[in-house]
Amino acid sequence: MVGERTGVWLIGARGSVATTVIAGAAAVTAGLHPPTGMVTATEPFADCPLPPVDSLVFGGHDPAPTPLPKRAEELVVSGALPPGLPAGVRAELAAADESVRPGTEPADPRGEERLVSALAEDMTAFGQTHRLDRTVVVNLASTEAAPLGAELPPSSRYAAAALRAGCAYVNFTPSTGLHHPKVRHAALDSGLPYAGRDGKTGQTLLRSVLAPMFARRALDVRAWSGTNLLGGGDGAALTDPGAAAAKNAGKERVLAEELGQLPEGEVHIDDVPALGDWKTAWDHVAFDGFLGSRMMLQTIWQGCDSALAAPLVLDLVRLVARAHQLGVAGPVTGLGFYFKDPDTGSSALSEQWRDLLALGERLREPA
Amino acid sequence: MVGERTGVWLIGARGSVATTVIAGAAAVTAGLHPPTGMVTATEPFADCPLPPVDSLVFGGHDPAPTPLPKRAEELVVSGALPPGLPAGVRAELAAADESVRPGTEPADPRGEERLVSALAEDMTAFGQTHRLDRTVVVNLASTEAAPLGAELPPSSRYAAAALRAGCAYVNFTPSTGLHHPKVRHAALDSGLPYAGRDGKTGQTLLRSVLAPMFARRALDVRAWSGTNLLGGGDGAALTDPGAAAAKNAGKERVLAEELGQLPEGEVHIDDVPALGDWKTAWDHVAFDGFLGSRMMLQTIWQGCDSALAAPLVLDLVRLVARAHQLGVAGPVTGLGFYFKDPDTGSSALSEQWRDLLALGERLREPA
Amino acid sequence: MVGERTGVWLIGARGSVATTVIAGAAAVTAGLHPPTGMVTATEPFADCPLPPVDSLVFGGHDPAPTPLPKRAEELVVSGALPPGLPAGVRAELAAADESVRPGTEPADPRGEERLVSALAEDMTAFGQTHRLDRTVVVNLASTEAAPLGAELPPSSRYAAAALRAGCAYVNFTPSTGLHHPKVRHAALDSGLPYAGRDGKTGQTLLRSVLAPMFARRALDVRAWSGTNLLGGGDGAALTDPGAAAAKNAGKERVLAEELGQLPEGEVHIDDVPALGDWKTAWDHVAFDGFLGSRMMLQTIWQGCDSALAAPLVLDLVRLVARAHQLGVAGPVTGLGFYFKDPDTGSSALSEQWRDLLALGERLREPA
Amino acid sequence: MVGERTGVWLIGARGSVATTVIAGAAAVTAGLHPPTGMVTATEPFADCPLPPVDSLVFGGHDPAPTPLPKRAEELVVSGALPPGLPAGVRAELAAADESVRPGTEPADPRGEERLVSALAEDMTAFGQTHRLDRTVVVNLASTEAAPLGAELPPSSRYAAAALRAGCAYVNFTPSTGLHHPKVRHAALDSGLPYAGRDGKTGQTLLRSVLAPMFARRALDVRAWSGTNLLGGGDGAALTDPGAAAAKNAGKERVLAEELGQLPEGEVHIDDVPALGDWKTAWDHVAFDGFLGSRMMLQTIWQGCDSALAAPLVLDLVRLVARAHQLGVAGPVTGLGFYFKDPDTGSSALSEQWRDLLALGERLREPA
Repeated sequence: MVGERTGVWLIGARGSVATTVIAGAAAVTAGLHPPTGMVTATEPFADCPLPPVDSLVFGGHDPAPTPLPKRAEELVVSGALPPGLPAGVRAELAAADESVRPGTEPADPRGEERLVSALAEDMTAFGQTHRLDRTVVVNLASTEAAPLGAELPPSSRYAAAALRAGCAYVNFTPSTGLHHPKVRHAALDSGLPYAGRDGKTGQTLLRSVLAPMFARRALDVRAWSGTNLLGGGDGAALTDPGAAAAKNAGKERVLAEELGQLPEGEVHIDDVPALGDWKTAWDHVAFDGFLGSRMMLQTIWQGCDSALAAPLVLDLVRLVARAHQLGVAGPVTGLGFYFKDPDTGSSALSEQWRDLLALGERLREPA
Repeated sequence: MVGERTGVWLIGARGSVATTVIAGAAAVTAGLHPPTGMVTATEPFADCPLPPVDSLVFGGHDPAPTPLPKRAEELVVSGALPPGLPAGVRAELAAADESVRPGTEPADPRGEERLVSALAEDMTAFGQTHRLDRTVVVNLASTEAAPLGAELPPSSRYAAAALRAGCAYVNFTPSTGLHHPKVRHAALDSGLPYAGRDGKTGQTLLRSVLAPMFARRALDVRAWSGTNLLGGGDGAALTDPGAAAAKNAGKERVLAEELGQLPEGEVHIDDVPALGDWKTAWDHVAFDGFLGSRMMLQTIWQGCDSALAAPLVLDLVRLVARAHQLGVAGPVTGLGFYFKDPDTGSSALSEQWRDLLALGERLREPA
Repeated sequence: MVGERTGVWLIGARGSVATTVIAGAAAVTAGLHPPTGMVTATEPFADCPLPPVDSLVFGGHDPAPTPLPKRAEELVVSGALPPGLPAGVRAELAAADESVRPGTEPADPRGEERLVSALAEDMTAFGQTHRLDRTVVVNLASTEAAPLGAELPPSSRYAAAALRAGCAYVNFTPSTGLHHPKVRHAALDSGLPYAGRDGKTGQTLLRSVLAPMFARRALDVRAWSGTNLLGGGDGAALTDPGAAAAKNAGKERVLAEELGQLPEGEVHIDDVPALGDWKTAWDHVAFDGFLGSRMMLQTIWQGCDSALAAPLVLDLVRLVARAHQLGVAGPVTGLGFYFKDPDTGSSALSEQWRDLLALGERLREPA
Repeated sequence: MVGERTGVWLIGARGSVATTVIAGAAAVTAGLHPPTGMVTATEPFADCPLPPVDSLVFGGHDPAPTPLPKRAEELVVSGALPPGLPAGVRAELAAADESVRPGTEPADPRGEERLVSALAEDMTAFGQTHRLDRTVVVNLASTEAAPLGAELPPSSRYAAAALRAGCAYVNFTPSTGLHHPKVRHAALDSGLPYAGRDGKTGQTLLRSVLAPMFARRALDVRAWSGTNLLGGGDGAALTDPGAAAAKNAGKERVLAEELGQLPEGEVHIDDVPALGDWKTAWDHVAFDGFLGSRMMLQTIWQGCDSALAAPLVLDLVRLVARAHQLGVAGPVTGLGFYFKDPDTGSSALSEQWRDLLALGERLREPA
């Protein structure tokens, strides 16, 4: 895909993850940082014709007013970006910020149809302005509660707009997106590739290797409990019980699938603003061994969610853009590695890794 | 292998692991406990013709004087066996204890050749007395330091005796066993199957799924530190720096292989008699994510080593006995799942699982 | 108090804590175990004339049908009592069980007045039958939700009965007990000593030393989060949101008092039946140091609640019995050491220790 | 002490702690940060006439060539100082750096007597140049091994120089300092105040509240194990077994004193350069409760050692300077709160707090 220009349209373009994606792509392009965490930059993908990071052009929707260069400074203070980085990539952040449009909010007074059209026009205009060969829309907005009525939730409006604008689509959140009944069929009929949902960055990543370990060793997992402490916008969004329920469903799926049944135990997500963009996730697994011996594993994961998510977003953009170029339609198989709630495939990370390598092979074939 | 009788000759036959193996086999046979932790009792091995647990006959070498029924009572006090179990399987423990011989100790005055012969005679006599179709010798003795001179260390004397007696051999410890230059060639020439070494029960098991996770996600592991607290005989044995070094080599192998290089960090093994047969293993992983963000994973594993080891020993006995029946010679491939320092194969648990399933397929073929 | 006989009437007499109290007192009397965890058995109380453990006589209320010897066997299985103990103290357990009466349940059809009388008669009869010099009533029943209406909740009915029967009273739970408006004044007028409430066994014990540490070091505690996993009856009872709220109030009190304000963070109490009578409590403290540096302390407490509570119950019985003998009336000051929500005094453990030593001095004076 | 000027002469003046002390004092003076972690800035010391932070003048000895403004930038990168701080206090850092002299190194060819004189002259010249009313010398250099021969180790040379220059002296490290036989008597005869040794910043701080908690609750601590992971210069220095032994002695002292005997367990200090100036300290306490129940407490402390130490250094300078003004001679009593191995007093933090408040009272009296 050398010579082509790929647009990246981020829903939630001024959030922590999006800011890290844009700043990080610029930093990697400038050689300021290695592409740590980008799986598509590792050896198994070396000769896969994915769009280079320096060919990505960023824009997106976000009603938040703080421009990207200022957001990046804030992320330095909260420890999510390294000191000095915003100054080094200020031009790229400012350029992307010029392509940010306000989009929509839950109580948008415009009718659904007019709204989707307006959002799609923003995406189309972005492609025209920057003479892009294609655009991948990525949902990075705060998690929303599962919708109750027939009305499209915001995530599905953006997803419908992406289809209408002929863009590939990635849902990195647990929100509804293309899973809404009013959109699902259009997605299948669109001829466009899409992927989702709910990026697997921390606690669920761990669970996707630990649960298979217990299962394969024939150990009897009795209870799996977890508490997540997080600040930042994500923590606040997840104080909404509906949003938290949507998030937790993905976390439990891997346990139920890998262990054969859902063990005892709950998952808590607490908003702790003092932690800023950093997260602590504690997991406690009670399992029985031989002759009923009671054992325990505890894990403590301390990470910066936006730094964990951003390279995965860049990976997904590159892979889905290439799929789009090859004319792949419907859910792109082989991306379960990235998601808590993938459209297809196993929930064990080792199987997902195998599937991803197989996808890499398919994307290597000539268009 | 229905109708056949398989001998299990345990080096260290009155230790915690061996006592748990013998008591556990009896408890499973009697239906007192399910075979939790025995991988060969799970569905993928359902129609593999392995020797049934109730066809195993136990004996072994151990200079320790405390008979097995008394050892089992001690293990109840230390929390390693459930209350009531020793009473339920007293007859089986007493029967096995009658087949325990003192064996040898490091300062045995007998010459090497005479000693190996005497040990082999014990094994042969065991087979004759019980009219066994075959015997698997398993080394469960305390870890010994790597040998310095040409003289065979105890573990290698027992291993040589196993060869001489025509027994299959499993080294569940990091001790030298068949890896000594004076024994290695005899092993290859013996036509017998063997497997090793160093059973993977806790901290290294975790590392064998976590290290691949970091590698596949392109996260940059900077340091991996660990501390193991353990009481029981194992803790005391590992206060010997040579023994600890032998043990740690296996723990580091998985990191070096999966991460491409050995990260910073040390592993400590502390003898804490107050913990009895229980172990706490703390691991601390410092890794860099996107844009140099510094993150951490900590794991705390609390388990009973003998309860973790015993079902793996029963698995290995069953698999290697079947290999012996089929005439497999040399190192049995596909058993890396069980070992810290396997003779062959990957050090990632998911690959090792695949290899184990493949071994299961091979063992399913008619003799 | 040598030569006197002290009754101990336990509300919830067949629960885990009560069973451990009765079995433990018998075991200590018989010399089977040292009085670990009993502060009144340590040197500072050596010459304080408290009732000897072997002078205590046990009975109580409990509608549960399982007799104490059987309950003790169950606690061995769940790991809360050591194997062999129930057999060693069977006679004492059976004797106490003969003095257990069913008491009342929330939906008792008898009127409040008749009910309190009936409960008081049980207590009086106990004293007469066993020719006791005095009786201390201790509430060990499952935590109840804070009462909404004017009706006495069960804990207050038992407390009122204790007053009526002339018994000293200890509330080891967060339930209302003597704090109900309809009982509070009777308590003050009764001339009887009482103490409460909510025994401080684990997470709050830790907080009562850690919070003062942060405060005295002028470190800025930003957030204090906690998760408790527990099985047994207590875990199930606390799935009731009202009961959990009552429990958590005590946990937060120490933070608010010692830190000057309540930090961010929540406390979760999860029912995890697989853990039996064992509890894991994880605390996560985010604090700022010099120049805004963000630091963290995490604690993991793994204990058996009944084993932690029982020696404190024996301490309280001994101290309050002596107070009763001396004619102390109203809340016994100096017992904050034992409670999450004490009637009086500091919430820092070091101050509470000082207060307890001072109480010991007062109780040393001649009657 | 308003109107007076107090010199602060730091041994190891360009190390992480010293740089944080100097930058932090400037930041607090400028109102850029509150004095979090400075106990002398809290209410109990409100009207104690200690030297104001803005009256402190900094200098010191250090052979390291990197000037303080550059060191501060490095500490931002390693996360020990907040971004932006070095720019805000550059002038103060540069001013202090002009008063840094190279001092001595272990293999200094000058004779002991000439060397001590030369170091003392540096201190005296500092006082004259800046017209200081008094100077407090603080040892912040890397931990040295316990000396074997009669020769003064570096820390004792600096301490002797402080005496000769008429300066008060604080030993914030476990190194020998004034505890050498050749210096001890001169210290007592000098008429100068001094304090030490080994600042209590993390793991030992925790132990000084947790060990008394276990003791007062009559719980039987069986084993106390710990592992410290740290990078920075301190981690490297402590790979020297002698230095580590000196450090660990202080850590064990609190356990032995508060628990009545030293429990099982070891302390490890690992150099993990990847952690930079941050430290993770894991402690594992195995304790027995009532009836021999086996319980556990684990703590994980994650902090920046220099940020923990710096406010304590400022506290000590202020307190010892006032003691000097009042003519206090010999070890200043009441400072055990700050040290792992204090010259006098209890090792329980609550007692030490009481002693510190009493010292505050004494320092409030007119000179």
